[in-house]
Amino acid sequence: MVSTEGQVITCKAAVAWAPKQAFVIEDIQVAPPLASEVRIKITHTSVCHSDVSIWQIQELVDVFPRIFGHEASGIVESVGEGVTDLQAGDHVIPFFQGECGHCSSCKSSKTNLCDEFVVNPGDGLMKTDKKTRFSIRGQPIFHFMGTSTFSEYTVVHRAQVVKVDPAAPLNTICLLGCGIATGVGAVLKTAKVEAGSTVAIFGLGAVGLAVAEGARISGASKVIGVDINPKKFNQGKLWGITECLNPLEYDQPIQQVIHQKTGGGVDYSFECVGNADVMRAAYDSCHKGWGVSVVVGIDTSRKILQLNPLELLEGRIWTGTVFGGIKGRSHLPELVAKYMKKELRIDEMITHTLPFSEINEAFKLLIEGNSLRCVMHMHNSEH
Amino acid sequence: MVSTEGQVITCKAAVAWAPKQAFVIEDIQVAPPLASEVRIKITHTSVCHSDVSIWQIQELVDVFPRIFGHEASGIVESVGEGVTDLQAGDHVIPFFQGECGHCSSCKSSKTNLCDEFVVNPGDGLMKTDKKTRFSIRGQPIFHFMGTSTFSEYTVVHRAQVVKVDPAAPLNTICLLGCGIATGVGAVLKTAKVEAGSTVAIFGLGAVGLAVAEGARISGASKVIGVDINPKKFNQGKLWGITECLNPLEYDQPIQQVIHQKTGGGVDYSFECVGNADVMRAAYDSCHKGWGVSVVVGIDTSRKILQLNPLELLEGRIWTGTVFGGIKGRSHLPELVAKYMKKELRIDEMITHTLPFSEINEAFKLLIEGNSLRCVMHMHNSEH
Repeated sequence: MVSTEGQVITCKAAVAWAPKQAFVIEDIQVAPPLASEVRIKITHTSVCHSDVSIWQIQELVDVFPRIFGHEASGIVESVGEGVTDLQAGDHVIPFFQGECGHCSSCKSSKTNLCDEFVVNPGDGLMKTDKKTRFSIRGQPIFHFMGTSTFSEYTVVHRAQVVKVDPAAPLNTICLLGCGIATGVGAVLKTAKVEAGSTVAIFGLGAVGLAVAEGARISGASKVIGVDINPKKFNQGKLWGITECLNPLEYDQPIQQVIHQKTGGGVDYSFECVGNADVMRAAYDSCHKGWGVSVVVGIDTSRKILQLNPLELLEGRIWTGTVFGGIKGRSHLPELVAKYMKKELRIDEMITHTLPFSEINEAFKLLIEGNSLRCVMHMHNSEH
Repeated sequence: MVSTEGQVITCKAAVAWAPKQAFVIEDIQVAPPLASEVRIKITHTSVCHSDVSIWQIQELVDVFPRIFGHEASGIVESVGEGVTDLQAGDHVIPFFQGECGHCSSCKSSKTNLCDEFVVNPGDGLMKTDKKTRFSIRGQPIFHFMGTSTFSEYTVVHRAQVVKVDPAAPLNTICLLGCGIATGVGAVLKTAKVEAGSTVAIFGLGAVGLAVAEGARISGASKVIGVDINPKKFNQGKLWGITECLNPLEYDQPIQQVIHQKTGGGVDYSFECVGNADVMRAAYDSCHKGWGVSVVVGIDTSRKILQLNPLELLEGRIWTGTVFGGIKGRSHLPELVAKYMKKELRIDEMITHTLPFSEINEAFKLLIEGNSLRCVMHMHNSEH
């Protein structure tokens, strides 16, 4: 195979020309990586709800045309100057929450929110030179969260990619690029759930089920799943949810139901919907004095949470997490290893597979609630 | 001395006949303790801001006449049936946040919010029989938070009193009944501040200074004090505050000033004012990713806190504490021991002493911001 190092690569990508408009598979140009960057041949990518919700934000029209995608796996094609810890052929997972490794936050064990790489869905440029590596017929195409995995080739900063065990199947570990890592991490890294704890999960999509997987790994004694779509309950039980509750079936608020079922509230609750009202219910579902509520979902509605100061004195703990507190470079290889040891499930999350050319169908499946994860294979030679 | 056990005692108490009305020193009757109760000869009591703020709430008019007071020390006069761990002559501290010792919260190391003894400023009756032990000319006088220490004798439930080292001076350890324990506990028990941490304290009254004392004990590296009254700054420095900030001297919000001075925010912030806007500033003053903000103050204004759900994703942690997370029976003897070993300061908090008869002056000193703590001696034989 002829090396493409240093060359512009022409390949297929799913270009979004405007908010909410169907993707078009186009021939695009991908420039070589600059210093500290890595060009990756994406082998598999999935669609996550953040792709959908940010693609739908009309206000971000200025960063179109754009290549979305942030949950993927691939193989390093070439590296830019100064990148010594990765080389062509390495199997990798790119990720949207960068880890520079040097800032006070990266040096702290308490957070993954790198000071240098701050997630900004409105930024479509590479950090290195504030330009794009993608173009089509000479016109720049904007990046998305530094990953842009809806392309056969992409360029990411070294702080946003990690080498993983080459024995791990790329067609499943791609889900560690966002959804699974976010849910499992929220339990293991952010909340640090102890064995025997009671847990409530609001929203039983892929992230919510990954929270259930984290709760199972932690040895939680009771895992309550809450969703207004009872179709999700069977799947929930496969992921270790011990009791499923549909708020629409109760006259009283679901937090009261949970208090009654748990002797005063759960030890930990996780909001995996991205809805301010649900966040409030999740907070209220916690036990006074020690209950911890972790917001995992992203509410883009601009709704504001209301909190009576006296409620804080009841000692519940409210916080949130991005990418489940996972530091991509430091922690993702651990999760891959757990998966390879069968201590962490991924395969069961993949309800659909499609060729990349059918990306619009993959979006439809997710939006209509018919898929947990649809993995797309990018090149015809791989499945 | 003739035993008064089993007898009604007539003694002096400061009776509040209506909200905001000056206290009247009256001869009142104190009934003997019922089963599980303890009658205490109060030797010293101080005034805390909660006495002031709850005495001012017009809506609580139905629980007057009332005997306030909840920060005190004394000597057991007699015990009710079934009380075996206390006896006449024991030196004790009563406290408003009960510890039954049996409920799931008391058995948890994570909270002091007993399920059985829930603080309720609107409740003026003893838990045992929903009646009062105080009367005047045959009319019941309501209790306050189960303590009512503005009386030469009071009756409390066994869950709200603890025996302490008889060598400890009663005229100083009375402050462990609320203010000092609340501030120190918020640091040591609720936030669990680590050595080397940065801390911001909003409000430099007695509780705020006790937070500073807790921060000193924890080995905090930087302690920022915030108050709009610069008169408090000299005292603040005596308590280990390394930098005092007056928000009125800055054009920008004080949280921004704190971010600049600490490289992105403090590790821990404590709100000791009881003002929703200050609570918000204290939360915003924390470092993203790990900063913990603890609400200690009580806002009775009914103002509601506003929080954008996306702000939670920045990973700050918001919670609150009552009585600093101190379990009265389990932890107060430890604090007394720390004081006796000179590891915890109390004496320096006492800016005034007065005879009990001058309680209205003690209130005035606190309300006008001229005292930290004014300790009143209850019986002429003690000072």
